[in-house]
Amino acid sequence: MTEEEFVVTPWEVEGHVDYNKLMALFGTEPIDGQLLKRFERLTGSIHPMLRRSLFFSHRDLNWLLDRYVAGEKFALYTGRGPSGHTHLGHLMPWIFTRYLQDAFDVDLYFQMTDDEKFLQKDPLSLKETKYFSYDNALDVIALGVNPKKTKIFINTDYAKTLYPIALEVAKRVTFSAARAVFGFDNSTNIGMIFFTSMQSAPVFLPSIIEGRKVPILIPCAIDQDPHFRITRDVAAKIGYYKPALIHSRFFPSLLGFDKMSASIPETSIFTTDTPQEVRRKIANAFTGGRTTVQEQKLLGGVPDVCAVYQYSFCLFEEDDARARKLREGCLRGERVCGFCKQELADKVVTFLERHQAGREKAKDHIEDFIIRD
Amino acid sequence: MTEEEFVVTPWEVEGHVDYNKLMALFGTEPIDGQLLKRFERLTGSIHPMLRRSLFFSHRDLNWLLDRYVAGEKFALYTGRGPSGHTHLGHLMPWIFTRYLQDAFDVDLYFQMTDDEKFLQKDPLSLKETKYFSYDNALDVIALGVNPKKTKIFINTDYAKTLYPIALEVAKRVTFSAARAVFGFDNSTNIGMIFFTSMQSAPVFLPSIIEGRKVPILIPCAIDQDPHFRITRDVAAKIGYYKPALIHSRFFPSLLGFDKMSASIPETSIFTTDTPQEVRRKIANAFTGGRTTVQEQKLLGGVPDVCAVYQYSFCLFEEDDARARKLREGCLRGERVCGFCKQELADKVVTFLERHQAGREKAKDHIEDFIIRD
Repeated sequence: MTEEEFVVTPWEVEGHVDYNKLMALFGTEPIDGQLLKRFERLTGSIHPMLRRSLFFSHRDLNWLLDRYVAGEKFALYTGRGPSGHTHLGHLMPWIFTRYLQDAFDVDLYFQMTDDEKFLQKDPLSLKETKYFSYDNALDVIALGVNPKKTKIFINTDYAKTLYPIALEVAKRVTFSAARAVFGFDNSTNIGMIFFTSMQSAPVFLPSIIEGRKVPILIPCAIDQDPHFRITRDVAAKIGYYKPALIHSRFFPSLLGFDKMSASIPETSIFTTDTPQEVRRKIANAFTGGRTTVQEQKLLGGVPDVCAVYQYSFCLFEEDDARARKLREGCLRGERVCGFCKQELADKVVTFLERHQAGREKAKDHIEDFIIRD
Repeated sequence: MTEEEFVVTPWEVEGHVDYNKLMALFGTEPIDGQLLKRFERLTGSIHPMLRRSLFFSHRDLNWLLDRYVAGEKFALYTGRGPSGHTHLGHLMPWIFTRYLQDAFDVDLYFQMTDDEKFLQKDPLSLKETKYFSYDNALDVIALGVNPKKTKIFINTDYAKTLYPIALEVAKRVTFSAARAVFGFDNSTNIGMIFFTSMQSAPVFLPSIIEGRKVPILIPCAIDQDPHFRITRDVAAKIGYYKPALIHSRFFPSLLGFDKMSASIPETSIFTTDTPQEVRRKIANAFTGGRTTVQEQKLLGGVPDVCAVYQYSFCLFEEDDARARKLREGCLRGERVCGFCKQELADKVVTFLERHQAGREKAKDHIEDFIIRD
């Protein structure tokens, strides 16, 4: 793979992603200044993740806001493939989703695809993916989603509800259409071929529950878009709205851009990590720094390739002025990596201390959020 | 398609089926005299459908009887694709299944594949296939299956139980394996590709419920064998017994061998037909008779291609001597078609009168048989 090449599917992100090319390839639209202003008018502010283009692309967002303005409440739908513990990269879209829930006062449907991860990952059992579904749900709850308006469901525990809806999708998706979107081959198992139907099903669930056509907004990393292209094709055929989407970039890896794999623990900070683990991982992180302090002072650092800077930019520095100062200090060679790492580690440890307390509290009221058959 | 060609898949039976070729093609074994004697020793008799080779082929039946003799109770598993009303052809394997349940005093798991028929048949809705599931269940119950030992389930109503088991199958079946068995192509919908996993799931259900490896015997028409070839491949990999099978021939069409389609009402007698409908359909049936009574007396009829004779042979003349007399009378030209049709119509009308009363009674205690999530 050359530097210009990259692959983005729901199960694989490889290479250095060019997000403009990806939008053109997927056929999505950029979030432009006009759309940001519309958000500001409707909600009173622009979330930092929007301002910073961490959420950068969409489908039918103007249509969704039209419906909202016309008095049609939408519902949010997002989810998680529970293949292990949650890492900070997973939290990014969930934090944004929680903000959307608050800003628009809407329901959130949160899917745990224990079936998908079991089918996709050879050594994982269904018992394990269900275990991680419950574990990951604690993270969602700890972020402060609205207990009255959030429904978390695990696919195998909610199959009596979801499977019939998934059948309505599956009947209308040919093998060749699915292959074109996901790149399946002869060795793909037949569960993975069907699975996209289960990810589509919750798009239609609120409409079925409420007995009206409910507009849906799906905040997700852009690698999940292919599933919902399928859903959108089917939606009109079965008499529902096409879901709108808002897409995030991928969260940076601690070891640099081309090593996004969450299956290498050292590339990610998990919400279950101890302060020692956090500090060790950040100490080993890939930065945009030079080999010596002298060179750093002379040439300046490269924050745009620096995992430590990206972490701050994505999650740990909401103040724009301070973020700019951080970036410019690095570019001018006034900051050294050790200092930035120390600063980030302190912030992450503080954040996780609070988040882990939230996870503990969530254990007592998880059942307020879970829906099952 | 020439006279020698035929196609047999779970969704299509076309041409004049050569059962010996089919056994060779599918890799199943014939039910021979030794096996019949073993049945007689174990159950005290040989059921007419076995004697007459209406059930003619099997997989691992000797192994299953070995387990039975060694004290391991097996369970029966069969089912129905509920795309419409039940016809007499569907009853044939169910009557045999009921006999097996009685003879061996075992549990019967009966699957209604409302998902499959919805996915396969374009105009059918899930509401319709579920409606026919309940309707068809009345026929199963009316045949006298044991209420204490029979569990009837409709896939979409039992998906919370079945879907996780189906996933264990699906994970272990590649697209190319499924395509090789079923002949899928690019236009096959992704639900149909997955569906075989749902048909496999009940094979493992008794083992999961009872917490021991339960041997399974599946009585079915031989077109269903491909599904269970897949199941058998997977069974060992997930620590269960391979299911044994006993295969029936296809029930004759009223309009002759090459018109098996149950979607043409005139080819089949439905359990919901009125006496008038029964008599009209039988009056129009294809027979092995000659064009004139003179020719019939001179040349004799051809019972082996006669739908009326086949109906008697399969379901309406259990007495071997009388069946032989019927056949020989026809061959010698002593019988004319009108007489045979009258005789058969009387028998079918009498049978259906009793069966329809059984269906009515079944409505009051159907819930004793149905299991759902």
